[in-house]
Amino acid sequence: MEKVFASIITIGDELLIGQVIDTNSAWIAQELNKTGIAVKNRVAVGDVWEDIWQALDAESKKASIVLITGGLGPTADDITKPLLCEYFGGKMILHEETLAYVTFLFEKVFKRPMIERNRKQAEVPDVCTVLKNEKGTAPGMLFEKDGVIFISMPGVPHEMKWLMLHHVLPLVEKRFTRGVIRHSTLLTAGIGESFLAEMIADIELSLPSHIKLAYLPNYGMVRLRLTASGTNAALLEHELSGYFNQLLERTKDYLVIDEDIPMELVVGKLLKARNQTLSTAESCTGGYIAHVISKHSGASAYYTGSVVSYDNRIKTDVLSVPSHVLETVGAVSEATVKQMAEAVRKIMKTDYAIAVSGIMGPAGGTDTKPVGMVWIAVASTEKTIAQVFNFRFDRARNIELTATNALNLLRQLILGKL
Amino acid sequence: MEKVFASIITIGDELLIGQVIDTNSAWIAQELNKTGIAVKNRVAVGDVWEDIWQALDAESKKASIVLITGGLGPTADDITKPLLCEYFGGKMILHEETLAYVTFLFEKVFKRPMIERNRKQAEVPDVCTVLKNEKGTAPGMLFEKDGVIFISMPGVPHEMKWLMLHHVLPLVEKRFTRGVIRHSTLLTAGIGESFLAEMIADIELSLPSHIKLAYLPNYGMVRLRLTASGTNAALLEHELSGYFNQLLERTKDYLVIDEDIPMELVVGKLLKARNQTLSTAESCTGGYIAHVISKHSGASAYYTGSVVSYDNRIKTDVLSVPSHVLETVGAVSEATVKQMAEAVRKIMKTDYAIAVSGIMGPAGGTDTKPVGMVWIAVASTEKTIAQVFNFRFDRARNIELTATNALNLLRQLILGKL
Repeated sequence: MEKVFASIITIGDELLIGQVIDTNSAWIAQELNKTGIAVKNRVAVGDVWEDIWQALDAESKKASIVLITGGLGPTADDITKPLLCEYFGGKMILHEETLAYVTFLFEKVFKRPMIERNRKQAEVPDVCTVLKNEKGTAPGMLFEKDGVIFISMPGVPHEMKWLMLHHVLPLVEKRFTRGVIRHSTLLTAGIGESFLAEMIADIELSLPSHIKLAYLPNYGMVRLRLTASGTNAALLEHELSGYFNQLLERTKDYLVIDEDIPMELVVGKLLKARNQTLSTAESCTGGYIAHVISKHSGASAYYTGSVVSYDNRIKTDVLSVPSHVLETVGAVSEATVKQMAEAVRKIMKTDYAIAVSGIMGPAGGTDTKPVGMVWIAVASTEKTIAQVFNFRFDRARNIELTATNALNLLRQLILGKL
Repeated sequence: MEKVFASIITIGDELLIGQVIDTNSAWIAQELNKTGIAVKNRVAVGDVWEDIWQALDAESKKASIVLITGGLGPTADDITKPLLCEYFGGKMILHEETLAYVTFLFEKVFKRPMIERNRKQAEVPDVCTVLKNEKGTAPGMLFEKDGVIFISMPGVPHEMKWLMLHHVLPLVEKRFTRGVIRHSTLLTAGIGESFLAEMIADIELSLPSHIKLAYLPNYGMVRLRLTASGTNAALLEHELSGYFNQLLERTKDYLVIDEDIPMELVVGKLLKARNQTLSTAESCTGGYIAHVISKHSGASAYYTGSVVSYDNRIKTDVLSVPSHVLETVGAVSEATVKQMAEAVRKIMKTDYAIAVSGIMGPAGGTDTKPVGMVWIAVASTEKTIAQVFNFRFDRARNIELTATNALNLLRQLILGKL
């Protein structure tokens, strides 16, 4: 069966001057992938007539589905709609149903008067099929040319997602007879990419051409992903699981989990299964660990909260770290993080606690405590274990690495490996 | 003077299945922009020989500088280096200086044995200029063809950034005589994009063709950015500031700040200038506000920390919210957030405090307290003000909106506007 390809075109000067990070493309790619459609290319162009035109030409030669996001706002720098109208040889007309919905939004939801610019959002090329956007004022638009379908969506993430889930994905699933794609992913910790590659080299070599292996290193951990493509789902899954089991067996000493979930959900699953709870005390990560855990709906089942003791005074006043400890061994020390972990565990009455204190950079390093040095403690009702780490990156990455490693240390404590 | 364009090609299957969000491109674009080089296109392709080849062909027709990231790792799915070797008609040779540096990294920094795969990272096409990468084992490579320069860098963000700052930017600055680009950005709050556009329509219409206006709406705020391009820096800046001052004057009732910094740094500047301090008490945002403030180096000058009271028990035990308040009006209420703010301000002995409690979704909403409802309180030594907000988005966006609006409320309190 022939593979169906999609291309993603994101439009907006803000993408080319770097003011906005494109998170839409990754999400779209994930969703298409699940339905067996592979993304061939992702292209970002500015609000420039000929660049957008050229991208439409180029991408429609490579793919059967061209998804376009952005450039549909009510302001003058958004030229996508008139361009699409000309590209597909149509003329602009008022779409009554969209006008009614935009009017409803302004009257009942935004509770603001509607102006001419907003009315304009209900104008669409007469050669498109309008895809109703319940989350905003700019509708989606479907065009067709030479067997390729083009779908234009707003760049606002939650509007784009709604249109994808309610219109685009059902439509492409129905339209395109296509192959099956299956992924299996495992997560390892404590082993480098090269060593892992060495360890599984013979398995990798034995893979048939329709099963690909990818290494996805991230924050001191490496994900291994097998991607299989074919036509018969059952056969493909059987074949894939054979190779995947070989990888699981071979990497077992470093294996964290056999699915594609982040470390905080690995820990969350362990806690939930045991009906146990966690609290955190954070210095250098400044609330990031709490955020990483609680950004997932359902975290309240096992997570109680955090004391972010960014200032040393809070370590003493709230977490009872003795002043003499701070004065002698300092805030970035084994004694401090152990006390922080034990104190927050008692304050929040939890089964486990995590505490971190370190120097994230760029400022604050000394000869004995350089930038990137972090003490991490994990505590249970029975013991408190602390380890020191030395990261070598920038502030943002040091904060992320601290969070991931702290959660990994807790995982080992929960599993009795510490 | 002719404008110099760059294109960015990012390589890796992980970008096309959406497993990784491309943050590199935005950063590269920002840096190039500062030097007056405009990004024409950003393209993401998979680890597929012909797709990479085709992207090199296509982008080198559009731009004088082609920056390539990714695909240089030690594993078998990384094909970029042999491809570049063939594309530029070279053969692979061992680069002694790189080998010495890779050996040094393994022996002295990673303290792990080096294997054949790692040695391979020191092999480069003999037709490239090697750009030393002090942050990792894969060097940067510079190629030239038909007047276009191509630079290949690893995809690991901190390695790419180091190579950009130490090799690529100095090189392109020296190499390309080019025009001047200047940006001026202002931030507004409390007014929609359409209304803002209406308010400044005549100024926008009066702009000359070399000065562009962009609307960048984000989290209930709108940034306005003027971008001017020309040849004479002094003249351009003078002209730009004329139009920018018109915008500042016209938008003054909604103006937050006349520069391109995020809300948490607007608040940070105000606190620092006043030598005052802030603490936070977070329920629904789960540490995100603390993280947003403390991710900036230097925040310890004004930020002391947070009590993340994710569990209601912590609201009672640590923040002294009376049980009867939680039982009657509930955790998402004016009384609760006011008490949280006042309590954390006293515990952390700060001048100001922020507290938030709400329902971020997707679960947890009720008829009277729907998903997206958030109470925010800000407290000073003199008063405590609370406001209720209703956001209509997904969990991640509701959390971000809560943080931005809480910081904006505090900004108004500090400025005596509440």
